[in-house]
Amino acid sequence: MSKKIVLLPGDGIGAEVIYAAKEVLEAISQKYHKVFEFSSYDIGGIAIDNHATPLPDETVEACKSADAVLLGAVGGPKWDNNPSDLRPERGLLGIRKALDLYANLRPVKGFKNLLHASPLKEEIIQGSDLLIVRELTGGLYFGRPSERLDDGNAVVDTLAYTRKEMERIIDKAFQSAELRNNHLTSVDKANVLESSKLWREIVEEKKAEYPNVTVDHVLVDAAAMKLITNPTQFDVIVTENMFGDILSDEASVLTGSLGMLPSASLAEDGVGLYEPAHGSAPDIAGKGIANPIAMILSAAMMLRYSFDMNEEAQAIEDAVEKVLNQNYHTADLKNDNNGKLVNTTEMTQLIVDAI
Amino acid sequence: MSKKIVLLPGDGIGAEVIYAAKEVLEAISQKYHKVFEFSSYDIGGIAIDNHATPLPDETVEACKSADAVLLGAVGGPKWDNNPSDLRPERGLLGIRKALDLYANLRPVKGFKNLLHASPLKEEIIQGSDLLIVRELTGGLYFGRPSERLDDGNAVVDTLAYTRKEMERIIDKAFQSAELRNNHLTSVDKANVLESSKLWREIVEEKKAEYPNVTVDHVLVDAAAMKLITNPTQFDVIVTENMFGDILSDEASVLTGSLGMLPSASLAEDGVGLYEPAHGSAPDIAGKGIANPIAMILSAAMMLRYSFDMNEEAQAIEDAVEKVLNQNYHTADLKNDNNGKLVNTTEMTQLIVDAI
Ligand SMILES: CC(C)[C@H](C(=O)O)[C@@H](O)C(=O)O
Ligand SMILES: CC(C)[C@H](C(=O)O)[C@@H](O)C(=O)O
Repeated sequence: MSKKIVLLPGDGIGAEVIYAAKEVLEAISQKYHKVFEFSSYDIGGIAIDNHATPLPDETVEACKSADAVLLGAVGGPKWDNNPSDLRPERGLLGIRKALDLYANLRPVKGFKNLLHASPLKEEIIQGSDLLIVRELTGGLYFGRPSERLDDGNAVVDTLAYTRKEMERIIDKAFQSAELRNNHLTSVDKANVLESSKLWREIVEEKKAEYPNVTVDHVLVDAAAMKLITNPTQFDVIVTENMFGDILSDEASVLTGSLGMLPSASLAEDGVGLYEPAHGSAPDIAGKGIANPIAMILSAAMMLRYSFDMNEEAQAIEDAVEKVLNQNYHTADLKNDNNGKLVNTTEMTQLIVDAI
Repeated sequence: MSKKIVLLPGDGIGAEVIYAAKEVLEAISQKYHKVFEFSSYDIGGIAIDNHATPLPDETVEACKSADAVLLGAVGGPKWDNNPSDLRPERGLLGIRKALDLYANLRPVKGFKNLLHASPLKEEIIQGSDLLIVRELTGGLYFGRPSERLDDGNAVVDTLAYTRKEMERIIDKAFQSAELRNNHLTSVDKANVLESSKLWREIVEEKKAEYPNVTVDHVLVDAAAMKLITNPTQFDVIVTENMFGDILSDEASVLTGSLGMLPSASLAEDGVGLYEPAHGSAPDIAGKGIANPIAMILSAAMMLRYSFDMNEEAQAIEDAVEKVLNQNYHTADLKNDNNGKLVNTTEMTQLIVDAI
């Protein structure tokens, strides 16, 4: 049976890394006799340029009838001064909402022979392997009102959640912990925010349903410290949208492998969207030197989560590991050990060959 | 002329470190012929125990008629399950609001011979010296509504600011940058939040008034990354309450000197409140081993900001530096170089002697 994959290259290096992921998926298709049908749509800045909106209806429709979506990245200085509704980020927020992608899964794991690029001391970062589960369609980023008041002399944003929205992401996190090392850290600001108090109550209620999972609660400010001082204490971290935005970006630089980190955004049972943790990197766009690995590993996550193709996903992950162990690296990764510098196409080809 | 100083020891190690700061101030008083009058009031958990409220009226009155306030720390597991209005943190939030302490200044600077305790590689943290200016009386922590809705099936918190509240903290940050290295990094989430858009507009408007200060804007998620990958790029960081809470705690662990970091919370022209960046550390409370230096340096900030006693403040800071250079350290600071381990009283006495 064929799988329909919608590609949303977006802006900056988006197109370069999406093309790399497609090449890798075609290698998988050949080797494992799978049929992938690709189609490509605009989102973000390029959609503003071509269609005067960051999220054209046809993009939403295509995603809704796809089996999975791969997204490159959105945004760039060209659109930075646009009015709110003509900002590339609106496309990303819009597609998350339209597909009800409430669960953002961001694994952070160091690659052994890239750890030297970590800003942290080796003894601190070594062995860290965590998964951040971020709520993605609620809270401050979507709350209403979000507007100027009092003739522009005041402003308000709204952090709103329903109990149901909290329950489903907390369930997802418990389930993720069961598939990993059975430990869940719930992050909130329950000593101040009412929303965090409800969050913490729900985590406490749900504990009974997942007796194998140990749980602790950490305040968001303390979590920002512990990620740095003791990252190995974490297995799965679950938190609301904005805290998750900040903490997952913080976590993404710990291992020195930002260009390697994939992410999955999942709906309750609909289509999933997969994108690299890094952004559109306008400074290197078009140069052909972007690191495609985060995007390629996002494609592997797609095979695993959306298509149940575990063997195929593993084949991609093993190929990446193999190429890195051969000391190949892209320009974003300094390499102390006489590494071999390659560009986007070369890195992609190496991974394809390893498959 | 005598200066009235209100001491708010609070909970956990609060009393131990407040007592240390008082000793040091008495040494200053002797040496420089200054008169300090001390009085002590309850706040936080101990106030809940003694007065059934985390912030008794007499505490507020005493602070309002003081020349400055020194606060130890609030909170502890004993009160963690109390209802919202009987939580120790409410005392802290309440006194901030009552004194209109809108500007929280948190310097983060490594001590040369403690840098080995940093989780970051030495080449990354070396030379970093930054000041976080956090808005302290607005935003999510004080916004209304903050409540359950729909029979407890939904919840809302409110991120509200007036233009005036933003202007005064942004002014404070520009002025702080002028006293330092003339660079200001404004942190927001202007690609999503309306409040951040207004914030960014005001920073842009104010630029003209401070022509010597260079300004950049960084998104909060990117800031959480850059603090780790490149902390030396920052001079002054200014941001709203919640972002400031997270980023200042994140920054506080970078240099390996959390137990050394002071903070000042200032009003437009009223009384200032000074407290260590660390918390109440219930696990070591009562053991006499807490590191008093953050509190002692907070007292130095008080001399400088509230009393204009620059020479006296410098005398404290020099004394601390001297004692550290003699390789004395408290239990929180691992010391690789045959350091001499001392307890709270001994460390305090060493600093007093050095004055
Ligand atoms: C681009 C932006 C709206 C987005 C977010 O904050 O959610 C991004 O930072 C991310 O983390 O995916
Ligand atoms: C105790 C808590 C309310 C407080 C805050 O979040 O403001 C603390 O974390 C701080 O940073 O001073």
